[in-house]
Amino acid sequence: MTTKTTPPTPTGLQLLSLVKPEGVLEISLVSVPTPTPAADEVVVRIEATPINPSDIGLLFGAGDIRTAKLSGTASHPVVTMQIPPAAMKAMAGRLGQALPVGNEGAGVVVAAGSAPAAQALLGKTVATLGGAMYAQYRCVKAEQCLLLPEGTTPAEGASCFVNPLTALGMVETMRREGHTALVHTAAASNLGQMLNRICLKDGIGLVNIVRKPEQAALLKSQGAVHVCDASAPTFLEDLTQALVATGATLAFDATGGGKLTGQILGCMEAALNRTAKEYSRYGSTTHKQVYIYGGLDTGPTEFNRNFGMAWGMGGWLLFPFLQRIGPVAAQALRQRVADELKTTFASSYSKEISLTEALQPAEIAVYGQRATGTKYLLNPNKGLVLQPENIET
Amino acid sequence: MTTKTTPPTPTGLQLLSLVKPEGVLEISLVSVPTPTPAADEVVVRIEATPINPSDIGLLFGAGDIRTAKLSGTASHPVVTMQIPPAAMKAMAGRLGQALPVGNEGAGVVVAAGSAPAAQALLGKTVATLGGAMYAQYRCVKAEQCLLLPEGTTPAEGASCFVNPLTALGMVETMRREGHTALVHTAAASNLGQMLNRICLKDGIGLVNIVRKPEQAALLKSQGAVHVCDASAPTFLEDLTQALVATGATLAFDATGGGKLTGQILGCMEAALNRTAKEYSRYGSTTHKQVYIYGGLDTGPTEFNRNFGMAWGMGGWLLFPFLQRIGPVAAQALRQRVADELKTTFASSYSKEISLTEALQPAEIAVYGQRATGTKYLLNPNKGLVLQPENIET
Repeated sequence: MTTKTTPPTPTGLQLLSLVKPEGVLEISLVSVPTPTPAADEVVVRIEATPINPSDIGLLFGAGDIRTAKLSGTASHPVVTMQIPPAAMKAMAGRLGQALPVGNEGAGVVVAAGSAPAAQALLGKTVATLGGAMYAQYRCVKAEQCLLLPEGTTPAEGASCFVNPLTALGMVETMRREGHTALVHTAAASNLGQMLNRICLKDGIGLVNIVRKPEQAALLKSQGAVHVCDASAPTFLEDLTQALVATGATLAFDATGGGKLTGQILGCMEAALNRTAKEYSRYGSTTHKQVYIYGGLDTGPTEFNRNFGMAWGMGGWLLFPFLQRIGPVAAQALRQRVADELKTTFASSYSKEISLTEALQPAEIAVYGQRATGTKYLLNPNKGLVLQPENIET
Repeated sequence: MTTKTTPPTPTGLQLLSLVKPEGVLEISLVSVPTPTPAADEVVVRIEATPINPSDIGLLFGAGDIRTAKLSGTASHPVVTMQIPPAAMKAMAGRLGQALPVGNEGAGVVVAAGSAPAAQALLGKTVATLGGAMYAQYRCVKAEQCLLLPEGTTPAEGASCFVNPLTALGMVETMRREGHTALVHTAAASNLGQMLNRICLKDGIGLVNIVRKPEQAALLKSQGAVHVCDASAPTFLEDLTQALVATGATLAFDATGGGKLTGQILGCMEAALNRTAKEYSRYGSTTHKQVYIYGGLDTGPTEFNRNFGMAWGMGGWLLFPFLQRIGPVAAQALRQRVADELKTTFASSYSKEISLTEALQPAEIAVYGQRATGTKYLLNPNKGLVLQPENIET
């Protein structure tokens, strides 16, 4: 019987995000005690955690990143930014609470509780989901960990959950709601590239909407069949033709604001009507749906209702979706991610940064854009730990 | 055995609405042969048919009623109006087709086929649904008729289907989708007054949204508990308080355009958060839904997504809803309408007009507004037939 181990260091740094009543967002690094794991828990030394758009939402809140100012000390830096007064109402719920950040991450299990499931992970590289990953050490239940296949680095396993499960969740939603093809916006994102690989592999029609010619070229170089550039003067006609070709009546939109969601519904209706036989005063009877799952455009959403009456728009979030489909179906999705981690679900990052680097205004100005090609990987133990792949065994 | 009867008159007037390619909407009265009923059919002499907002949509299409011009003869008048060029695209599907109008109506069965179900209706006052009711005679299947209770006039039975079933459909949707109270806009309409009576009778919380103080007064005089006037400076706070009081998380919106749908979702979220215990970064997890079932405001729909991620917006139509719930559930709703026709489901009209009067620009200017208190009842046989209530029996 292996005995319960204690963590290797008494404290570790953790990133916290705080909204102050005077309209200031403050991000700081604090030293917190490394927990001693309970019987069914493990302590993971986090070595890779992505900065996803959903993390950025919590990290900066309504703070204006252009006003970022650095203070504090070299080892315990603090960055502050202004929150526009009009946005403070939306921040009311998190006022005065220093919130940990980071949905998912990967690293090495450095301490484990006495339960066999926990002990089995000791020394292993795992991925985990559950918030507060922007920290050197994170104590989680063993069952929250996904044991990464032999030869997988923390960096390769860091984005095991949010993007892969979101992309698979879109395909699963399509099947469960009776659609046969998909539309995706901001389609050149890491998530979008993943969705494109899934759809190519599974033979599902996918209409990729991007905002720039270079994003269209990127997706086409990865085999994407239908790519529509919203900046092209022919966009609405291009989109309608792609919808005729694929028959897609379901879209997942990452932008939220502006006119795009309504344009997608309008083009779906136009595509359906190109094959309609007679006038229907209420438009096509085929249900057309757009789910908004992100907010890259924080402005208002605006649409003309030129798409009949059989339509829906709504929010879509991964965690309620996983709850809705139940543990068995959710586990099947997780297993597929583990099986195809280095192919279908591979992520790429433009840079790896440390916790202190994450607080530098110059870095924030880059990764805070949430733009294609500026995705960062955070390594809370950067420079402090030998990477497992560098250790001779 | 009664023999099959033939219609009493060889022809009858019918109203037709036509979109011409040059951008003109033309409404005319044409003489059409009165059909001889098949075995399972009856001919109804239509004596009362409401001009509902849904009928006006088909009647005028995208025509501008302010440009209405009368021509033709006294017995066969024609009215034409201009269609704005920008709106012609939406009219493409009905170009060149002279369409009959009128969803529902009531009258006396003047001819019947040989089947017992048809013969049983001969001489009876019935209500019927099925389009083309703006005509002196309408041939329908006997099973499409609702035999009105003894002592009911055609005028009392004219609005048996669309408004009553829509109002009951809203309540039924609320129950089936797990909500416990309702929000309704344009709530002083005939439909809104009906919904208020249903909710008062069934003990369901109802938040009535109106646009004018006199509409608020009208609903309050009918016992409405929660009435919010969108023209009041305190509207958003009034609405939030009413949502706290009722717990309503489902709304039916007749306006469609503008900011109201988003404001309703935003106030629902605010109401839910007033009782929330801790900060949830994605907002309340309670699903909030707005169904748009009309288009009183034809302008764009615009909203700020300040209501978390658990929300939906979509179109709602009576007929697909009835198909979805199936014939048994639909019949239960119809039976309730018949049982409470003179109380819960009573309609009121500001004026009764004939077919020729319906084509007069001065009348169109009134009923074409679709405003509270300007609802007209059309009697295609006005002045031509003694009303049943005036006949000594």
